[in-house]
Amino acid sequence: MNDSAIGIFDSGMGGLTVMRALAERLPGERFLYLGDTARLPYGSKSADTVKRYALQAAQALVARQVKLLVVACNTASVSLPALQEALGPLPAIGVIEPGARAALAVSPGGPIAVIATEGTVKGGAYVRAIEAHGQAPVVQQACPLFVAMAEEGLVDGPIVEAVAHRYLDPLMATLPRPRALVLGCTHFPVLRSVIGRVAGEDVALVDSAATTAQAVARLLAERGLARGAGPHEPHRFLATDAPDRFARVGEIFLGRAIDPGSVEPIDLQ
Amino acid sequence: MNDSAIGIFDSGMGGLTVMRALAERLPGERFLYLGDTARLPYGSKSADTVKRYALQAAQALVARQVKLLVVACNTASVSLPALQEALGPLPAIGVIEPGARAALAVSPGGPIAVIATEGTVKGGAYVRAIEAHGQAPVVQQACPLFVAMAEEGLVDGPIVEAVAHRYLDPLMATLPRPRALVLGCTHFPVLRSVIGRVAGEDVALVDSAATTAQAVARLLAERGLARGAGPHEPHRFLATDAPDRFARVGEIFLGRAIDPGSVEPIDLQ
Repeated sequence: MNDSAIGIFDSGMGGLTVMRALAERLPGERFLYLGDTARLPYGSKSADTVKRYALQAAQALVARQVKLLVVACNTASVSLPALQEALGPLPAIGVIEPGARAALAVSPGGPIAVIATEGTVKGGAYVRAIEAHGQAPVVQQACPLFVAMAEEGLVDGPIVEAVAHRYLDPLMATLPRPRALVLGCTHFPVLRSVIGRVAGEDVALVDSAATTAQAVARLLAERGLARGAGPHEPHRFLATDAPDRFARVGEIFLGRAIDPGSVEPIDLQ
Repeated sequence: MNDSAIGIFDSGMGGLTVMRALAERLPGERFLYLGDTARLPYGSKSADTVKRYALQAAQALVARQVKLLVVACNTASVSLPALQEALGPLPAIGVIEPGARAALAVSPGGPIAVIATEGTVKGGAYVRAIEAHGQAPVVQQACPLFVAMAEEGLVDGPIVEAVAHRYLDPLMATLPRPRALVLGCTHFPVLRSVIGRVAGEDVALVDSAATTAQAVARLLAERGLARGAGPHEPHRFLATDAPDRFARVGEIFLGRAIDPGSVEPIDLQ
């Protein structure tokens, strides 16, 4: 069981930023990543549709005997309670809860600023998670152009800077000034240098990829599921569409080349 | 039969620019628009997946007794031959063929510049359609950020201008200089003032929404399917996800308000 892979699921390739943080934190573990590229993005879709897609993806990973499921997608993390019910005893972890806790640790009284997709903002998952653990007011901003720019590999320069000002200036003008800014979409860590510069040096960026990796490490240890050190099979990828594009664009998010031969097409219909 | 609606299908809301042109050109006609908002965008998906989705959408419109099908999506227009086969005698028209003919009329010897989604560019549908009717070389550029900006209603100003320079400057530097620029994605007409300014005054913009409306008018007349003047039932909309967002964002593309009550959810699975 401990030799089984950790399953990671995202609507597309953004969740590879979470896999990157996981692989750095847990070098002994093997990962099986599923990107629902045929139906991405989830961020502009309704909660019911996202829940249905997330369940199909989780079931596909369970069928491949993963030992733990990471929902590496903020939008789909909203479906975590429904997923957990369907999955039974398999432990599952999302990106919202670790991000919310980390933001509260940085700025206990808030306000906490959250940038995310339209779906995550409207769903209010960060607001609820932060309320569940503390007393900080939350201000939010949907940043759909960040997603498109990240997927194009446009992660720095004057265009990104101008778009960042468009989204962040009104958000950071909140009074009192937020001291924590949650990167509430897995695409955003690749834009973090511009986001950090535009938000201001006094603002702590909360990267849910890193905080999720910590949470996964803790969970593996608690449940006795961690794999010992030593070589393991290569990581594998499943994509519901265009495995070649997955390998090419995925590299931006994973931070290293993806062998197209390691990406297998899968049909979730 | 002539009183039946004209069915229009797109991956999302961009096809509403085609509906807008159609409604202006054919004020006596009633339209039934289907946006596959649960699975948009098609532009980054593989041809097989797009064909499967397009067939499901076309069948849903046929089941609602439309008299003609307009595939108001460049990416899905590639599937037109397969659709036509599945639809039998029902006439179907896409946006690529009219756009290709119009570009050749403007610039018979080329070169013709085409901007589109990644899927349309890779599929090479404009290249083939232009080759089928003339002898003009074609240069292409995928412009995914234009789609994201249009959906956000960000259609003018310095950010749009900077992105337009990023995409268009290398394309228009082609020698000899292109005199025709095809807006090969239904989202792009809402950005046409910036695109026209950046491309240059000597470049003719070919808006496939307008050319498709002409082609539909001709086809209706040829087949004796045109409806006479006079009041008709209101236009209706079907959306596979988030009808409220459809009504809100759709307004940008249709150029007039959409009553949320006229948007019906539909499941194409």
